[in-house]
Amino acid sequence: MTTDGVPQRTGNNLDPWYANYAARAAGFAASEVRALFAVASRPEVVSLAGGMPFVSALPQELIAQSMERVMREHGPTALQYGGGAGIPSLREHILEVMALEGIRGASVDDVVTSTGSQQALDFVAKLFLDPGDVVLAEAPSYVGAMGVFRSYQASIVHVAMDDDGLIPEALRETIAHLRGQGRRIKFLYTIPNFHNPAGVTLSAARRPEILEICRQNEILVLEDNPYGLLHFDEPAPDALRSMDPESVIYLGSFSKTLAPGFRVGWALAPHAIREKLILAAESAILSPSSFNQMIVSEYLSTADWRGQIDTFRGVYRERKQAMVQALEDYLPQLSWTDPNGGFYVWLTLPDSLDSKQMLPRAVRELVAYTPGTAFFADGRGRHAMRLSYCYPTPDAIRLGIRRLAAVINGELALRDTFAGTGSLEAPHELEIESSAPPSDLK
Amino acid sequence: MTTDGVPQRTGNNLDPWYANYAARAAGFAASEVRALFAVASRPEVVSLAGGMPFVSALPQELIAQSMERVMREHGPTALQYGGGAGIPSLREHILEVMALEGIRGASVDDVVTSTGSQQALDFVAKLFLDPGDVVLAEAPSYVGAMGVFRSYQASIVHVAMDDDGLIPEALRETIAHLRGQGRRIKFLYTIPNFHNPAGVTLSAARRPEILEICRQNEILVLEDNPYGLLHFDEPAPDALRSMDPESVIYLGSFSKTLAPGFRVGWALAPHAIREKLILAAESAILSPSSFNQMIVSEYLSTADWRGQIDTFRGVYRERKQAMVQALEDYLPQLSWTDPNGGFYVWLTLPDSLDSKQMLPRAVRELVAYTPGTAFFADGRGRHAMRLSYCYPTPDAIRLGIRRLAAVINGELALRDTFAGTGSLEAPHELEIESSAPPSDLK
Repeated sequence: MTTDGVPQRTGNNLDPWYANYAARAAGFAASEVRALFAVASRPEVVSLAGGMPFVSALPQELIAQSMERVMREHGPTALQYGGGAGIPSLREHILEVMALEGIRGASVDDVVTSTGSQQALDFVAKLFLDPGDVVLAEAPSYVGAMGVFRSYQASIVHVAMDDDGLIPEALRETIAHLRGQGRRIKFLYTIPNFHNPAGVTLSAARRPEILEICRQNEILVLEDNPYGLLHFDEPAPDALRSMDPESVIYLGSFSKTLAPGFRVGWALAPHAIREKLILAAESAILSPSSFNQMIVSEYLSTADWRGQIDTFRGVYRERKQAMVQALEDYLPQLSWTDPNGGFYVWLTLPDSLDSKQMLPRAVRELVAYTPGTAFFADGRGRHAMRLSYCYPTPDAIRLGIRRLAAVINGELALRDTFAGTGSLEAPHELEIESSAPPSDLK
Repeated sequence: MTTDGVPQRTGNNLDPWYANYAARAAGFAASEVRALFAVASRPEVVSLAGGMPFVSALPQELIAQSMERVMREHGPTALQYGGGAGIPSLREHILEVMALEGIRGASVDDVVTSTGSQQALDFVAKLFLDPGDVVLAEAPSYVGAMGVFRSYQASIVHVAMDDDGLIPEALRETIAHLRGQGRRIKFLYTIPNFHNPAGVTLSAARRPEILEICRQNEILVLEDNPYGLLHFDEPAPDALRSMDPESVIYLGSFSKTLAPGFRVGWALAPHAIREKLILAAESAILSPSSFNQMIVSEYLSTADWRGQIDTFRGVYRERKQAMVQALEDYLPQLSWTDPNGGFYVWLTLPDSLDSKQMLPRAVRELVAYTPGTAFFADGRGRHAMRLSYCYPTPDAIRLGIRRLAAVINGELALRDTFAGTGSLEAPHELEIESSAPPSDLK
């Protein structure tokens, strides 16, 4: 910066504007797993770290035809600004999609489309979160959601889950404890189906109970459901939203069931909240892309999208089976979740291992995963990791788990050898670049 | 909502969650000109209210071909998540675009693409604005930017402008006055070229002076330049960013020079700020649409985009001339700005008229405009209006101004007749719907 004759800034040498940022900017930290994208993009590494759907399985010709028709028949509309709530025809289709999850009778007026469901999450957070407010979230929870909540200076408090999802009694106790401290709880953020990262699903029996607890405590439920339609055997139970339209903001996405490149997601919200969400959307982006919304709408009108989702289910089912089989073969002494849908397995390590410390060694052995610590706001998760099976082929998954097993078993052997000597920390020979995008995280 | 046996919420009947919103949500008010979109969309109304570019003048076949090539050659990449900063090839093209405005030597690393430049504005505001902070803006200023600043609870303080744009002495005095009150000024938001809504351009002579004042006072400059390439006779002076890379965040957009339907805009920021903007982007949307960015990039690689912008210039030049000619013919007693580019003319009314009160009467006479009050944060602007010539044909513009003149002259005659009787308020016979998107505002 040209500072001739100008008084010194209150910033520092690295950033002259350092002193000017808002208080909330302190929460804008690069996620610790952000670095993995650069790693995962090297072809020799088997990445079990990402959340990228296998878009090569899509009928690309049908998508291209939808584009062509949109441009030919509605070019000037597709190229123009649209409405802040999104285009009506797409919102009608979204009602059909949600009906598959048990949501019926919703009004097209209460659907607001967004730049991926991530943006709907951002709008909800912006609308509700004052600094210091508490968001309840499963332990563990989606790293990208926690990042949004932190960016509005909220505190995330985890609630325990087990193989049937969020534990009602733990929710009750956490609320009582926080209320006893005078904390203000704004909502429960939950991924009830094929949880990211835990892979578990909230049981049908627990759903009304969770809703009842939140209603009694006047806590809004933020139901994030990007994976619900990607079930393997039986469908997930009906959405929470289907049981309580007035207490649930439901978030849906085409990023997992179709393609993330369009960035089309949505919120279905109680009517009064929906009005404010539209104002938040208009402030942030004026309107979501008409072009993308019209292409997705045209695709849903003309292609067999239910059949295409079924194809995805088959792809992911096979990959999940490959991963679970490989874990049984190579790491039989460990425990993991066996999801009935979605993208992720949660692997629990022996207490003596630290998934974050072990990562550089794993990457040296050409396998990547996401350390469990990424999914906790409170430092937990060192003895766990998220393994994703969505993107690599079954053979690559098997190879990756074999490499991972070698790393884990090597670490365990090292620990046995040096037990008690205090030199247990894994050497960090490998520097991981940090110039990586977050798209790998969802 | 099911409230059987549940204690009454602290909300109200219209919105049970009323008490739960964040403090900043109070700033999420529908813009007073939001209603105009519904009005403008009726075919019998000549709308001089919108900011929609005339996308029908685009080479739609070339755009369709770009899409087709992207899908054929890079389908899986276009459909996948991308990086938070945007795709590198598009950011390279953005450097070429900015070079036309005098910005040379910028690094592709410092360009961050966004969902329209509106979203870049949102990221900057989120990054810098604490509640109570001051943003300086021209008087008048872009309604959508003021909405963003308010959504982060900032105060907007206007700085006077004249036909040469922002007045340096007024800027100096405003800063001194605010500093005297202990206020914290975060940035100067300015549209130096073909101002929205005022239509004026900051003179070349004033540019270094404005920058120097901001540097001396350690105030960041937020330069919003969506219209810069849409000049009629001579080009606008070089961008502020070209003279001071370290004190300016520059915002650019393809919404006016190409098409808003893609929602592709960008920020060029000092390096340290750019890092934080990417984190804000990742938090808000993970990544902007790969698909849209790749189509714009492909179009810029293969089409004569400079020629296409030239076509746009010709279209808007003709329409501006039609508007100014019609104003001379039908409203010679009034004064207006005569822009050398962009979309807008600012019309000043006699003090006895109120553009906001007069709007329902104008719409009844089948012409719409944006009342001046929309562009002030402090209630000013009643005696002015923004007239946009970007979307209607020259004939429609002439018809619209003729209708507007009839309304204005009718109001003036009414005021002469009833002068002093106190019954001057225009009757509001026409209810304007308020279910309108904001896309008309930019």
